[in-house]
Amino acid sequence: MESGQRIEAALERAFAAIETPAGPPRLAAAMRHAAFGGGQRIRPRLCLAVAMACGDDRPEVTDAALAAIEVLHCASLVHDDLPCFDDADTRRGKPTVHRAFNEPLAVLTGDALIVLAFQTLSRGAAGAPDRMARLVDIVAAAIGAPTGLCAGQAWESEPDVDLTEYQRAKTGVLFAAATEAGATAAGVGSPTWRTLGARLGEAYQVADDLRDVAADPEKLGKPVGQDEALGRPNAVKELGVPGAIARLKALVTEAVDSIPECPGREPLRTLILEETGRFIPASLAREAA
Amino acid sequence: MESGQRIEAALERAFAAIETPAGPPRLAAAMRHAAFGGGQRIRPRLCLAVAMACGDDRPEVTDAALAAIEVLHCASLVHDDLPCFDDADTRRGKPTVHRAFNEPLAVLTGDALIVLAFQTLSRGAAGAPDRMARLVDIVAAAIGAPTGLCAGQAWESEPDVDLTEYQRAKTGVLFAAATEAGATAAGVGSPTWRTLGARLGEAYQVADDLRDVAADPEKLGKPVGQDEALGRPNAVKELGVPGAIARLKALVTEAVDSIPECPGREPLRTLILEETGRFIPASLAREAA
Repeated sequence: MESGQRIEAALERAFAAIETPAGPPRLAAAMRHAAFGGGQRIRPRLCLAVAMACGDDRPEVTDAALAAIEVLHCASLVHDDLPCFDDADTRRGKPTVHRAFNEPLAVLTGDALIVLAFQTLSRGAAGAPDRMARLVDIVAAAIGAPTGLCAGQAWESEPDVDLTEYQRAKTGVLFAAATEAGATAAGVGSPTWRTLGARLGEAYQVADDLRDVAADPEKLGKPVGQDEALGRPNAVKELGVPGAIARLKALVTEAVDSIPECPGREPLRTLILEETGRFIPASLAREAA
Repeated sequence: MESGQRIEAALERAFAAIETPAGPPRLAAAMRHAAFGGGQRIRPRLCLAVAMACGDDRPEVTDAALAAIEVLHCASLVHDDLPCFDDADTRRGKPTVHRAFNEPLAVLTGDALIVLAFQTLSRGAAGAPDRMARLVDIVAAAIGAPTGLCAGQAWESEPDVDLTEYQRAKTGVLFAAATEAGATAAGVGSPTWRTLGARLGEAYQVADDLRDVAADPEKLGKPVGQDEALGRPNAVKELGVPGAIARLKALVTEAVDSIPECPGREPLRTLILEETGRFIPASLAREAA
């Protein structure tokens, strides 16, 4: 099965397990709205690529891990879009959850998606309890306090923000979890796999800052200029466009150089260089060339 | 150690594990604000009482389970108090999290507390992976979709609400999880333990409805009359005060009668009858007598 199809199938199974007539139908619909249609699936693709490079000997555990990672990402988007944060009307070219449904359901959708990540791990990794315990740890650390996504977002309520720590916690941490979870799902527990994801996450955040200034609303599918408007730290503001592009390329090099020895090291390296080639917005790539 | 002290110590350990200088300090403060000072700890006391009745052979697993249950309860209160739900100014006699801090931190505090429940289970039950996996399942089902606390709250966004299903999902489910988790933590996996918690949860919801009409704001520590104002289902409106009190007593009887065979069945029965005696507000108990 092609990677994209496998990821969608894994997500479908995760959702099917909690979709019963006993539950409130609008919550189920809002959760699907948040998770399907339009996502690039970058983090689960990374998780899967690492698991496959490590042998992917328990595909059901890999599927649980990549679905958990993507579901957490979707949860964070739903809450980030809320009126008290970005107050976004659109996401991935569709109305945000609080616009398509209502604000209470958007809060609950984010909550229930966080929980779905753990439900998915618990179900999918039931046959490998040692890997499951480690995956719960990895996933929890990636979303919670003190250094997960919630903490990253919470830095915006602090008087002093450190750019590196903020970007690491906001984006790097879920990428780092994706690579570590991929390796763990395949029975390779080494935390050295985190570096690959961490650097790619930083690169993706720089790319996001570049997209924000490139200001191509149709392609991005969400309002632009939010970082500027909210006074958030931004690599482009700190380094300029050429400096940010150079930083992005250096991060990708560090990422691929960090890949630990494994059966599929070379194909993984090639795949990552291909995918990250698309990180830089076309208009800025031309400008910087 | 006395039960109350043991519960506070277990919660302190759960929080200490995620309180590091690397995290944003205001998020850590908001999480503590939500979880300490004023809570009755009814659910963790129930969890602990069941675990002790079942032998409590792995106290560190019991402590993880009861802390996870209480932390989830606190998470649900923080989100329930948000402007888009109850818009409450006070909780347990203190400002709510979004009043004491801000609305973004209140959303993140709820999120991070949900995650803390799983982090706590993962740490505390590491030595008993089989029990840990089951506890993750129990806790996730209690908070998530399709029939956990989030689902209970989401019923309020549905055009038709079933009183029984709504109350079960909103309160009963976390009580049922508390008793099942207590038994599971002690190595007794039987889901028959859920009935005890489920009935007590329903009784507690009826008691909450009674407190709401008894309208004693100082004692309750939160604004009253919310159910009426929001048009929510309410046992007192359906059955009247004497009918609701009779229903509460019947539920407690069903609860204690359901306690499965275990070494500490009689002391558990006595404890529950004592504690539930305090469920009915004094003013209404006099009136109904």
